[in-house]
Amino acid sequence: MAANNSPEFNWSCPLPSDLAERILLAHGGGGRLMQKLLESLFLPAFSNEALNRRHDGAVVEVGGARLAFTTDSYVVRPLFFPGGDIGALAVHGTVNDLAMCGARPMFLSAGFILEEGLPVAVLERVVRSMREAAQAAHVALVTGDTKVVDKGKGDGIFINTAGIGLVEAPSPIGPQAVRPGDAVIVSGDLGAHGIAVLSVREGLEFDSVIASDTAPLWAPVRALLEAGIEPHCLRDLTRGGLSAALNEIAASARLAIRVEEARIPVQEAVRGACELLGLDPLYVACEGRFAAFVPAREAERAVEILRRFSVCAAAQIAGRVEEAPAGTVILKSRIGATRVLDLLSGEQLPRIC
Amino acid sequence: MAANNSPEFNWSCPLPSDLAERILLAHGGGGRLMQKLLESLFLPAFSNEALNRRHDGAVVEVGGARLAFTTDSYVVRPLFFPGGDIGALAVHGTVNDLAMCGARPMFLSAGFILEEGLPVAVLERVVRSMREAAQAAHVALVTGDTKVVDKGKGDGIFINTAGIGLVEAPSPIGPQAVRPGDAVIVSGDLGAHGIAVLSVREGLEFDSVIASDTAPLWAPVRALLEAGIEPHCLRDLTRGGLSAALNEIAASARLAIRVEEARIPVQEAVRGACELLGLDPLYVACEGRFAAFVPAREAERAVEILRRFSVCAAAQIAGRVEEAPAGTVILKSRIGATRVLDLLSGEQLPRIC
Repeated sequence: MAANNSPEFNWSCPLPSDLAERILLAHGGGGRLMQKLLESLFLPAFSNEALNRRHDGAVVEVGGARLAFTTDSYVVRPLFFPGGDIGALAVHGTVNDLAMCGARPMFLSAGFILEEGLPVAVLERVVRSMREAAQAAHVALVTGDTKVVDKGKGDGIFINTAGIGLVEAPSPIGPQAVRPGDAVIVSGDLGAHGIAVLSVREGLEFDSVIASDTAPLWAPVRALLEAGIEPHCLRDLTRGGLSAALNEIAASARLAIRVEEARIPVQEAVRGACELLGLDPLYVACEGRFAAFVPAREAERAVEILRRFSVCAAAQIAGRVEEAPAGTVILKSRIGATRVLDLLSGEQLPRIC
Repeated sequence: MAANNSPEFNWSCPLPSDLAERILLAHGGGGRLMQKLLESLFLPAFSNEALNRRHDGAVVEVGGARLAFTTDSYVVRPLFFPGGDIGALAVHGTVNDLAMCGARPMFLSAGFILEEGLPVAVLERVVRSMREAAQAAHVALVTGDTKVVDKGKGDGIFINTAGIGLVEAPSPIGPQAVRPGDAVIVSGDLGAHGIAVLSVREGLEFDSVIASDTAPLWAPVRALLEAGIEPHCLRDLTRGGLSAALNEIAASARLAIRVEEARIPVQEAVRGACELLGLDPLYVACEGRFAAFVPAREAERAVEILRRFSVCAAAQIAGRVEEAPAGTVILKSRIGATRVLDLLSGEQLPRIC
């Protein structure tokens, strides 16, 4: 230890230290670096019960009502892509975070940060899309704000939405409620959103157009609740995809999650595009898919209910929760080998939402 | 009229039309262009009762509780200035919008949009400031989100906060409740925030350092409510300053507002700086000042209560509401002349909050 304090013996490499002192794209990627930022900076600063639960939204009590409250900023590039745009995403993302709390989405706020020089027609198209998405999801956008930054200090449009929902789930939903033996349901095929955005951004052409899966998820979640199924945890598969979601839950719950690759649905076209691009669909962001942790005895019935909704037509039981090794996600591959499904340091695809 | 349809007689100047088709800094300035964007785009798209009231926040009912809900994005440049920083601003601004709804601020969300390359130490300083501001304002930051955009596509840190408050005012507060005869109270001296930001941004040195007035405002508002005073309208004097606030209220209420320049407090140093810079303090943003519209018979008592709080030490009755000319703000100058205090097209100072 003494040697470290002596200048002659200071062997620490300056490069990684310097990197860690600046924000990298990976800090926003849903992976390890983002977790680190959360754990070293945000959680200690604002420590409180709701925040510490580390779920997609906070559940709080106001005036006797049990509310879910959540926020997300959207910086996707490009603004428009097959199957969606930043406006639809800004509604679906926040509505889905509320749904993942077992809450009926009710009210949204919208904060726009516009770059000087943005064509008003582009903003109009985005606002129209937000309106349609809000109507379809039965939420009202009740308050908003617009800021404009100088040309070159933004990127067209950034949108923040926050949302309020009324909690309808009778029991708390979150990683803390997950139990060994729970079944892990994946609500649909993975990766279409990320590949859809990437294909326009990079000008890639595949045999068929891959459309984003962006969609609101409250209807299928409500159907589960109305059928008396009590999900222990729900998590939408956004930044970092299924892998990030399962890793976060395994870590928070201090349990192991085992999933089978053969039981995780991926569209053929998405699989092909991923192979071509060297991406793993288990890490690619979705915007209309979620993982549900339910008691094993209710899993088959839950899948049956979910499949009634087109957005969940490919729902599958993909795995289960075990005691050990705690904090770990283990994947059984198609050929039967098992490996740890780890958290990436950042994200394969930046600015996908 | 026919001539206008004929190409030979098309005298319309292409310049303003083209300008109107792109977003300008002025669209975020709290002035006429921002009103236009609101009225032509956002309000028609999302029309609903809460939004149409056009107050600082929406008042909605969820699960039997009457809540205020509001959002603001903060893009102030530079991030740090005398008396505050973007973090404190992001807490105070949203807490104050809730207070202006007569609501006790309870919960905040925070969405960060970080620019790649930002020193982590800068983020830490901002987060520390947010924590202190949140503690002082008795609100809990319960949910958050972090996005990172590529270097050159952002500007260090943008923060969005949304807030939930519990409405404690017994009657609705907003422009619609303003009545002829109401007194207009200005809660303190104007313009310090805008000048504080500008002085660092432009490297200006004045005889004395002018510190931002940024501060939470719920305590004085609650004191009014607890004393049984029912404010008809409350409005914090942010973008566009007192002038924008009064013009918005006069327009929404379809009433006239008369104020006396001699009764509107401005610090000597701020007045001097404004003269030097060719700015009008009535248009400069504050972040800890508000206008209160109260029944005339309660005005003196309201001022007395407000002055007990250091943030409102300079509170004054500055004017009153009249029937006509509807939608107009009239200023009686120090020398006794009257003039219309108009809305600017944009803002004198962009990116001040």
